[in-house]
Amino acid sequence: MQNIKDYMKGVGQAARAASRLMAQADTAAKNRALTGIAAALQNQSAQLLAANAMDVAAARAGGLDDASVDRLTLTEESVRGMAEGLRQIAALPDLIGAISDMSYRPSGIQVGRMRVPLGVVGIIYESRPNVTADAAGLCLKSGNAAILRGGSEALHSNQAIAACVHDGLRAAGLPETAVQVVATADRAAVGELITMKEFVDVIVPRGGKSLIARISEEARIPVIKHLDGICHVYIDDEADLDKAIRIAVNAKTHRYGVCNAMETLLVARDVAAKVLPPLCKIYLEKNVELRGDDAARALIGQMKVATEEDWHTEYLAPILAVRVVAGLDEAIEHIGTYGSQHTDSIVTENYTKAMRFLREVDSSSVMVNASTRFADGFEYGLGAEIGISTDKLHARGPVGLEGLTSQKFIVLGSGQIRS
Amino acid sequence: MQNIKDYMKGVGQAARAASRLMAQADTAAKNRALTGIAAALQNQSAQLLAANAMDVAAARAGGLDDASVDRLTLTEESVRGMAEGLRQIAALPDLIGAISDMSYRPSGIQVGRMRVPLGVVGIIYESRPNVTADAAGLCLKSGNAAILRGGSEALHSNQAIAACVHDGLRAAGLPETAVQVVATADRAAVGELITMKEFVDVIVPRGGKSLIARISEEARIPVIKHLDGICHVYIDDEADLDKAIRIAVNAKTHRYGVCNAMETLLVARDVAAKVLPPLCKIYLEKNVELRGDDAARALIGQMKVATEEDWHTEYLAPILAVRVVAGLDEAIEHIGTYGSQHTDSIVTENYTKAMRFLREVDSSSVMVNASTRFADGFEYGLGAEIGISTDKLHARGPVGLEGLTSQKFIVLGSGQIRS
Repeated sequence: MQNIKDYMKGVGQAARAASRLMAQADTAAKNRALTGIAAALQNQSAQLLAANAMDVAAARAGGLDDASVDRLTLTEESVRGMAEGLRQIAALPDLIGAISDMSYRPSGIQVGRMRVPLGVVGIIYESRPNVTADAAGLCLKSGNAAILRGGSEALHSNQAIAACVHDGLRAAGLPETAVQVVATADRAAVGELITMKEFVDVIVPRGGKSLIARISEEARIPVIKHLDGICHVYIDDEADLDKAIRIAVNAKTHRYGVCNAMETLLVARDVAAKVLPPLCKIYLEKNVELRGDDAARALIGQMKVATEEDWHTEYLAPILAVRVVAGLDEAIEHIGTYGSQHTDSIVTENYTKAMRFLREVDSSSVMVNASTRFADGFEYGLGAEIGISTDKLHARGPVGLEGLTSQKFIVLGSGQIRS
Repeated sequence: MQNIKDYMKGVGQAARAASRLMAQADTAAKNRALTGIAAALQNQSAQLLAANAMDVAAARAGGLDDASVDRLTLTEESVRGMAEGLRQIAALPDLIGAISDMSYRPSGIQVGRMRVPLGVVGIIYESRPNVTADAAGLCLKSGNAAILRGGSEALHSNQAIAACVHDGLRAAGLPETAVQVVATADRAAVGELITMKEFVDVIVPRGGKSLIARISEEARIPVIKHLDGICHVYIDDEADLDKAIRIAVNAKTHRYGVCNAMETLLVARDVAAKVLPPLCKIYLEKNVELRGDDAARALIGQMKVATEEDWHTEYLAPILAVRVVAGLDEAIEHIGTYGSQHTDSIVTENYTKAMRFLREVDSSSVMVNASTRFADGFEYGLGAEIGISTDKLHARGPVGLEGLTSQKFIVLGSGQIRS
């Protein structure tokens, strides 16, 4: 291969050119491409699984850990899942070109906004090959061009999926360069991708915290991201304790390795003695390790000591930090100090405290009487999710199609001039 | 003064702490502060003008050019204008806390969004002291804390305005540190401000292109900005020529030194011979220098030769580049190649071409049959304007209060857990 800088520049230029055509593409063509890709994935599933088997064999030979091999492995079922995901994206409304908020101004002009694609989206991810299909589908539907850079261990799988994506684009009369999968395992390609300001409008990294932290640090292009999901549930002294236990169990134990799982439980002092024993009994039955402050440990014998570091930690594992707080103010203070602005939930029947928690907790998702596990694009009705953002500019919280778009002002006049 | 790094860190910490209080501040308190500042500015106008006179004298002695001295100079009238601007901001609706798009999901949770402040806004500007009051007012109303860094030549003026801002904040029971004016002329303060990620959420630079380019290059915090305003008017072959002349004259000659003034006029070949002679006659009467391509020069004898560089230039002066194009496609192509994504307008009576121009021109404001001079927060009904953004992430086009805010998801449940 030619040198990486030139190669990535070529990819960038092609993406920029394709993005102009994609911005004008009509809804029917985009949907035809999406369903065409879905069909290609299912028709070519034998080739796809063969390519994936090569990657899996090489990964095992190279000593990749089991969890990563698991994420890398495709099956008939996961290929069907990719295809189904694309058909679901095809069924979502097309946001592009939508005009909103048109109103007449005193000058006689009409002013409103039209939704437009961002342009070129760079996606950087690790070993899951299904991200290739998902991300391609979301970018395509939102009228963007995409440059996809998956983990080097999934190179053959991703190229096979890319072939299906190109089949679908071509059949729909759209440019194949609208979705490009970077065809090199060289890590320098990432360095180029995240600094090619003139060709790339936004970077969406998907993967572990260290990958995302490195990309955010080095990128010269805006990054849609979150680093940590240190999510809290606060059980208020006016909580319905049945709801509290149900929510706290679900938020921690429904899945451990996900960013919207609870990592720290805060309990109001006045109900701690009542709620912690039955709740911790369930955690211990599920083999959740408990680490608490003195007040919590006074109630639960099996609880280990929580250190300052525990309040800062996203375990992504069956471990839970537990702290007894005086009440709402201390809970909000704790979340503001140790939280990651991802998702935090209060359990209370008190209206005023619910409203205060909603207003004062500065996180991308704030909940009342619901499990933090609901922080998800599908659960929120966004139809799909390309990532979750805890930043404040542009998209915030689960990011679906809308987060891959922007708006421009449009002005309709009849010859008005400014006086 | 202690070293700049420590000083700015102190400013940043105070701003972050104040931003938490400002985010909770109720509408009445924010409006009381705004009207209180307005009153203080008018009551203390003698001190204000005295402080300003010191700056003006020093600037003149230091050899500052007349235009800059002009921008630096305050008068009774401009102080009244600042106060009036603050009262107008007080009269605008409070966006913070507004809840939108709440809907029930199949799981039974209700999901919607709540508007929230960005947090801490850093404003960097040049010699105009009135920006201090404007920017403070917009940040305050939108629930943000502000760190203001004006030109060193306006230091005394800005400190005097800051004293009024602090009076207003204090009287309203809000923290004075919600608006801090950087009290040093040392340029290193700017370098700190634009890299203090932990304390500052967004930077809004106001001033010349070189200032903004330097800040964008060095900032490690998102910047709301535009660099160039290379605005186009395209006169289509199906234009109403009276409208075309009226709009083209206004877009160029209403004010020369503003970012939404037309810099390049594109004319469809079929109407060039009809529209250019009467239009150019008006320009020449107004002493606008004309630079054209061969086709335009064949029609207008007094037109100089336009070089490739002219199509790339924001003159901000009585100079206009003129190009004859085959039609709509070539006009869109020219704007895509040479434009700055600021503001572009088509003059046409043809519905299909108007719609194509709206959809295909990728600028932050796209207009039909209206002067580019309307690209302005007040004209658009935003109530005020802190700047114009040509970027695609977050705010785009004129930026008012909404651009200084974000949204968070809120979830209202009744004990739901994820299954």
